[in-house]
Amino acid sequence: MSSEEFKEWGYAVIDWIADYHETIESRPVRARVKPGEIREKLSPHPPISGEPFDRILEDMETIILPGITHWQSPSFFAFFPANVSGPSILGELLSSGIGVQGMIWATSPACTELETHLMDWLVSMLDLPRKYISTGSGGGVIQDSASSAALCALLAAREEATKQVSNHTGCTMPLACYASSQAHSSIEKAVRIAGIGSDNLRIVDVDSSFAMIPADLERKMRRDCEEGIQPFFVVATIGTTSSNAMDPLRKIGSICRDMGVWLHVDAAMSGTAAVCPEFRFLFDGLELADSFCFNPHKWMFTNFDCDCFFVARKASLIHALSILPEYLRNRASQTGEVIDYRDWQIPLGRRFRALKLWCVIRHYGIEGIRFHVRKHVDLAQRFAKWVNESDDFELTAPVPLNLVCFRHVNGDDFNQELMDTLNNSGDLYITHTRLEEHLTLRLCVGQTNTELSHIEHAWDLIQKTAFDLVRKSR
Amino acid sequence: MSSEEFKEWGYAVIDWIADYHETIESRPVRARVKPGEIREKLSPHPPISGEPFDRILEDMETIILPGITHWQSPSFFAFFPANVSGPSILGELLSSGIGVQGMIWATSPACTELETHLMDWLVSMLDLPRKYISTGSGGGVIQDSASSAALCALLAAREEATKQVSNHTGCTMPLACYASSQAHSSIEKAVRIAGIGSDNLRIVDVDSSFAMIPADLERKMRRDCEEGIQPFFVVATIGTTSSNAMDPLRKIGSICRDMGVWLHVDAAMSGTAAVCPEFRFLFDGLELADSFCFNPHKWMFTNFDCDCFFVARKASLIHALSILPEYLRNRASQTGEVIDYRDWQIPLGRRFRALKLWCVIRHYGIEGIRFHVRKHVDLAQRFAKWVNESDDFELTAPVPLNLVCFRHVNGDDFNQELMDTLNNSGDLYITHTRLEEHLTLRLCVGQTNTELSHIEHAWDLIQKTAFDLVRKSR
Repeated sequence: MSSEEFKEWGYAVIDWIADYHETIESRPVRARVKPGEIREKLSPHPPISGEPFDRILEDMETIILPGITHWQSPSFFAFFPANVSGPSILGELLSSGIGVQGMIWATSPACTELETHLMDWLVSMLDLPRKYISTGSGGGVIQDSASSAALCALLAAREEATKQVSNHTGCTMPLACYASSQAHSSIEKAVRIAGIGSDNLRIVDVDSSFAMIPADLERKMRRDCEEGIQPFFVVATIGTTSSNAMDPLRKIGSICRDMGVWLHVDAAMSGTAAVCPEFRFLFDGLELADSFCFNPHKWMFTNFDCDCFFVARKASLIHALSILPEYLRNRASQTGEVIDYRDWQIPLGRRFRALKLWCVIRHYGIEGIRFHVRKHVDLAQRFAKWVNESDDFELTAPVPLNLVCFRHVNGDDFNQELMDTLNNSGDLYITHTRLEEHLTLRLCVGQTNTELSHIEHAWDLIQKTAFDLVRKSR
Repeated sequence: MSSEEFKEWGYAVIDWIADYHETIESRPVRARVKPGEIREKLSPHPPISGEPFDRILEDMETIILPGITHWQSPSFFAFFPANVSGPSILGELLSSGIGVQGMIWATSPACTELETHLMDWLVSMLDLPRKYISTGSGGGVIQDSASSAALCALLAAREEATKQVSNHTGCTMPLACYASSQAHSSIEKAVRIAGIGSDNLRIVDVDSSFAMIPADLERKMRRDCEEGIQPFFVVATIGTTSSNAMDPLRKIGSICRDMGVWLHVDAAMSGTAAVCPEFRFLFDGLELADSFCFNPHKWMFTNFDCDCFFVARKASLIHALSILPEYLRNRASQTGEVIDYRDWQIPLGRRFRALKLWCVIRHYGIEGIRFHVRKHVDLAQRFAKWVNESDDFELTAPVPLNLVCFRHVNGDDFNQELMDTLNNSGDLYITHTRLEEHLTLRLCVGQTNTELSHIEHAWDLIQKTAFDLVRKSR
């Protein structure tokens, strides 16, 4: 593709994206296709000769878009958000365009140094503990996801707990880790991957707000100690996936300190809220944690993948993950003056992901990010108030930030039918979870362009649909 | 950022990238900055208010580019290539623009179905064993890197070897795995992450071409069995990182079959060569492997990250990695008619990475990809011939494809100085490895726009620089 052709099709793709976002509300939020329907439309064989780019753009419209669930629709309230923004898309484009590898400092110093710099910016923006600043014993790194961050934290904790022998001999000590019943599935996945085994993940009880009960954590840790099993890793969550529950960090951290156990704090979505001073009370006690992560690719207008992972003792992480083959040896690494991020993550290769985050922070500024986060929280709080004031609906969990858990009073089957009908309408997309065995609906406000009108429309539609279903069932 | 602003700055970024690639040869290939030099130029604090986008583009030029090692320069011969192309950059841009999550089929069916479709295309394009086709018991998936693919393969192999109990109880059996001394460092990293321990990775000897000696593999496996240690995982490499050595798959595969051990084949760079029928003899015996991976982000003109990982028994992989929380339950998954790729990888979230690969394959067509791969191999073979005909230089390993290992006859210190001088010139970038204890230089041809003139220039420069160094030392 010549430079002229690249420009021609590049402009066309930019226009296509702008048009996509302008017209996104005219599309059903959740894809309506059946399994296999997209594949049937694709050419069965790869082309022998090259095709003109306009055919690809045509197929984007006719084949791909009907199979897309529109995560960037302002009426997407499902799961957690994965909000993007113009500056983020352009930052990712810059990264693609220069196509460098940032596995070690020497393979592109700017890729490493901008990332380190931004991680330090975020410590200040979110008012995180100073121990995460890169110039001390800690530091930050961009991971692909909170799942990988949890795995890296677990591996570093295992290194510390086993006095750095398990990397050589395999992990033979009886070890145990702890998370609440509401922790993300990635914690159990990490425990399995690392060969610890699900049976050695203790499920800590939660209170009526679905937050971890510190006393139960301590009880379970002490019982393990008595039985000769070594507690080594605790995960607390600030904003659980199901209901946005907030584990009490200070109490949990204090127990972990007393027992010398690594505390990892997963704030995948809700971490972004710490950019606003009024929400920082949720993070009280974070200075007691050994590692922390949050995802700008969820609620900070930055394209996936971009999880920011901070660790208090980078030496433990590096010791867990560093292997230096001859072909990567270089003077800069040997001086110890530089960071080689390959030793902070599972894969070796890495994109220049800091560029998109840099574009987002500079485009919005701290005030711009705060403005949007506050708006999302305000919209969720309004919605929660409407639910609370309604006779037919009830809240099923506290609403600390931007996620509302609620249900119709008519029971599980009715709520399932209500959700299916709403999602089939194409006007919005919400998902569910189970809290205390009951099906509950989740409405999460976090897409970049969600406004009051979208929340109002959602509430109207939910009420109207429920009313129709009640009438139909009589 | 409004739609109009997005278009304005989008065009500007497209122009910036086109200009970057047009002028790339005027820049020193390897960055010349000192540690900390980039950070010093960055604003110490994040901005309170948003900044105009043109300032970011200015900083790209003045701050970022001086700290970039130009992986897309046609005179980049270091490490392995990470070649990109116009259609790939635009495919990645489309993916960023729609910003969907493909963790499960239901979160964007097209994201999953296009990926499955392309993996099947690649089975046909590379003439891979039919067992990797998605409609049977196997299938393919895009991973971020060959490192992650190796880890996933190891976890699936562990599941099979431990009869699927280790995920629950932790891995308590004595297990051993095997790779040659030339295997990639990611294999040892995977062994550590999974809690197997480096001491349980047996290093198999290599022959004079640096290929694994099957008899030594068999000997080491049998010795482990005699000692009550269960062999469960063997990695063979088609194109090692150091010297592009080719492990003899058929013999290795046959041993693994006899002993019921999982064979994973890592063809990270060289896998792309299988698109050309004349290079497929290197993959002879691949039907005996249980998993296979190669990286279009190395040599198939596709932006990082894009590793294609194929597995013969997807059920084992899924059993190793699947955990289903309530909030991800959905009808489509429950029918079993769809693929949920979250269960095929370490992280939960996933980008729509298939789009860039689709753009590349359609833009180039099979013939276009073959044309470039053949050209790169031809250029490397010419370079190898020049080295062979020279009195001052010698080849240090066979040159099966596009990587030439060579050195000046004057010994390690001289070769180190030669490499440093060449790389400091900015005219090209080569890296090194050690083979049989000797420092050896590596020249890898794989950047999208490398032509005969670049190889000729490199050889001239290498000869001239060596001549000057010899004269200076007298």
